[in-house]
Amino acid sequence: MVSVAIMGHGVVGSGVAEIITTHKQKLFASVGEEIYIKHILDLREFPDSPLADRFTKNFDDIINDIDVRVVVEVMGGVNPAYDFVKRCLLSGKSVVTSNKELVAAHGAELLKIASENNTNFLFEASVGGGIPIIRPINQCLVANNVSEIAGILNGTTNFILTKMINEGMNFDDALKLAQQLGYAERNPEADVEGHDACRKICILASLAYGKHIYPDAVHTEGITKITLDDVKYASIWGGVIKLIGKVKRLPDKKCDIVVAPMLIPSKSQLANIDDVFNGIMVRGDCTGDVVFYGKGAGKLPTASAVVADVIDCVKHLKNRKYLFWADSDNSSVIDYKESVTAMYIRAIADNTADAYNKAKSLFSDIHILENSEAKENEIAFVCEPMAYGEILNNIDALNNSGIKVESAIRIGDL
Amino acid sequence: MVSVAIMGHGVVGSGVAEIITTHKQKLFASVGEEIYIKHILDLREFPDSPLADRFTKNFDDIINDIDVRVVVEVMGGVNPAYDFVKRCLLSGKSVVTSNKELVAAHGAELLKIASENNTNFLFEASVGGGIPIIRPINQCLVANNVSEIAGILNGTTNFILTKMINEGMNFDDALKLAQQLGYAERNPEADVEGHDACRKICILASLAYGKHIYPDAVHTEGITKITLDDVKYASIWGGVIKLIGKVKRLPDKKCDIVVAPMLIPSKSQLANIDDVFNGIMVRGDCTGDVVFYGKGAGKLPTASAVVADVIDCVKHLKNRKYLFWADSDNSSVIDYKESVTAMYIRAIADNTADAYNKAKSLFSDIHILENSEAKENEIAFVCEPMAYGEILNNIDALNNSGIKVESAIRIGDL
Repeated sequence: MVSVAIMGHGVVGSGVAEIITTHKQKLFASVGEEIYIKHILDLREFPDSPLADRFTKNFDDIINDIDVRVVVEVMGGVNPAYDFVKRCLLSGKSVVTSNKELVAAHGAELLKIASENNTNFLFEASVGGGIPIIRPINQCLVANNVSEIAGILNGTTNFILTKMINEGMNFDDALKLAQQLGYAERNPEADVEGHDACRKICILASLAYGKHIYPDAVHTEGITKITLDDVKYASIWGGVIKLIGKVKRLPDKKCDIVVAPMLIPSKSQLANIDDVFNGIMVRGDCTGDVVFYGKGAGKLPTASAVVADVIDCVKHLKNRKYLFWADSDNSSVIDYKESVTAMYIRAIADNTADAYNKAKSLFSDIHILENSEAKENEIAFVCEPMAYGEILNNIDALNNSGIKVESAIRIGDL
Repeated sequence: MVSVAIMGHGVVGSGVAEIITTHKQKLFASVGEEIYIKHILDLREFPDSPLADRFTKNFDDIINDIDVRVVVEVMGGVNPAYDFVKRCLLSGKSVVTSNKELVAAHGAELLKIASENNTNFLFEASVGGGIPIIRPINQCLVANNVSEIAGILNGTTNFILTKMINEGMNFDDALKLAQQLGYAERNPEADVEGHDACRKICILASLAYGKHIYPDAVHTEGITKITLDDVKYASIWGGVIKLIGKVKRLPDKKCDIVVAPMLIPSKSQLANIDDVFNGIMVRGDCTGDVVFYGKGAGKLPTASAVVADVIDCVKHLKNRKYLFWADSDNSSVIDYKESVTAMYIRAIADNTADAYNKAKSLFSDIHILENSEAKENEIAFVCEPMAYGEILNNIDALNNSGIKVESAIRIGDL
């Protein structure tokens, strides 16, 4: 019998307790021992839970219990999760977490502490919910040099964009619906501004390239400015708008990393990932493109990934899994203005013919998007790939000559 | 330094040697030791290979070398691979293989021998080439009860079907093209008759449910009878025809397993997997549907999966990975005639109105597929789900009443 503790009894935490209870036999068959939930840490009361006798409000009950070999952290947020996780690892307990904020902010340090204490720090559930992605990148694709990872990493924004694309709903209405359905928080900022996706691409990039990339080094744009006009032009162009987290390794081993809405061609595997689903593409020099698809969030998908990590910890109580990346100062990340991308641009101009000529003179080559339902005085085009800083300068130049740029969205080369 | 031997220097074997050589640094970083190719077994001569001094024609050089801890079997076929692999495992060497025929025929026995000798027998590359699937099912989805696995498991047939669907090429021409491009063998039987896909779904089913399912217990149909008329009707129905390997666990824990072409709705994640790509859907009670997509064959994708397994063996030289299933007498597999499915049926009848009435009286409820370009006297419909044996009886009854059934293809509920 191996004793575990669960810190947090919210959506994911209660799911972890549920799976360990309901899948007892399956887990026993896999691990050869019973997994016993000894403590559940939560400040709230759960008198009706079948595990009511295991609840505690005191972290000391966990840290001081030498029986507890694996601790599940599903509290969310950085504090006090960071302190608790650190102390567990320092005392030689393995830790499993679904907390992307924690891993993105302190992953390198916590992995180092785990390594120094010959214990494990696993976080499969922190990216892609129930989709296997951390272990596949770390183990299955280890014989590859990964040139690029790109994914739809946030289900809430993908649900909103899907409603805009398939049902012509505007952003505000789609967000409201997402909130009604429980997909979006009352304060939706972390999702719609791209911060959640940013944490996840940071974790994947750190894992793939062995150096921690911190969220504050990543240029991040959300989807709040996307309009139904842009959705229409994306369709004319031959694709859809998706919020993409993307990291590309350049020949000098620097990372070009960004989170932003992008126009994705319809034939891309990522274009057909709808609603709250996530999809992650990993491009390896040997495998080519591999794509992982599934539910990126939710109680049981996420909890099942946590439990899989718990099992891995139990199987590796005496030897570490080789999951590791080093700390870094973000110097491997290029300035976002140096990132090369093609761009879709929509603007309003008094004279559209003149405006297209001006755009041509600035961007050298543009592909005009013909729209029979275009608004009066509207122009829209896609420019050739160039440095993002140069595109910003050209957009300034357009605005300064009276051509009001309303939208500028990257073309995702996926 | 860990010494390995590679048995077979064909497409995959030369790829394995290439990756271990060219990705030396990356592998060293992951495993903390150099992986050294000490022997390569092949009956042919490779005087120009940079590893020319490592070649041997004598298996004894490998089995008798106590330095060799991991043996890669990429010869293909059951003999002599089976004998060689067994002897390696019995002598305590870990074995990695990409040989689906071997695993499907002798997996349970070889896993048992590995277990008894405290060594590892890994075969990530045997299904889905470079797509991570064995490890994800075994590790990441372990906290799930898997209710169903369905996949496009054979790239050759998927290429042929894609050409038929997208370019209106007929089967014979598409097969010829596949042969010209090196996707299909000169004798394409194993691919086009579904045997290759059958071996792969057997491996996945054995892994997911813990009991070996042998290929001869699996009803297997190929794609040689698919016509462009069927492709057209599939499109009218709202989908595409794909060769699917599928296993479903019934409430009594019996397995409903089949390999056959199926009509897949366009909105399914498997419908958009084209050309030589593979896609595998795993349905878990906690995760919901998870889909894995990528190149299912080819030198470097397959070899990179083999090398990932080699690394796992090197990391687990002293303790086993918990990859295991028990032998069985196939009694967990239901008779294919008991399998419940909806069916698309196309037939030629002297009087189509009478024929539809006859079909209705036999199948109780049918959905007629309206085709403005239908051939004279052609009828086509989809029946409600019923036992396959019953469908066969009804097809006999149609044929006996002068309604010549030309096609009958399952509806894939995916």
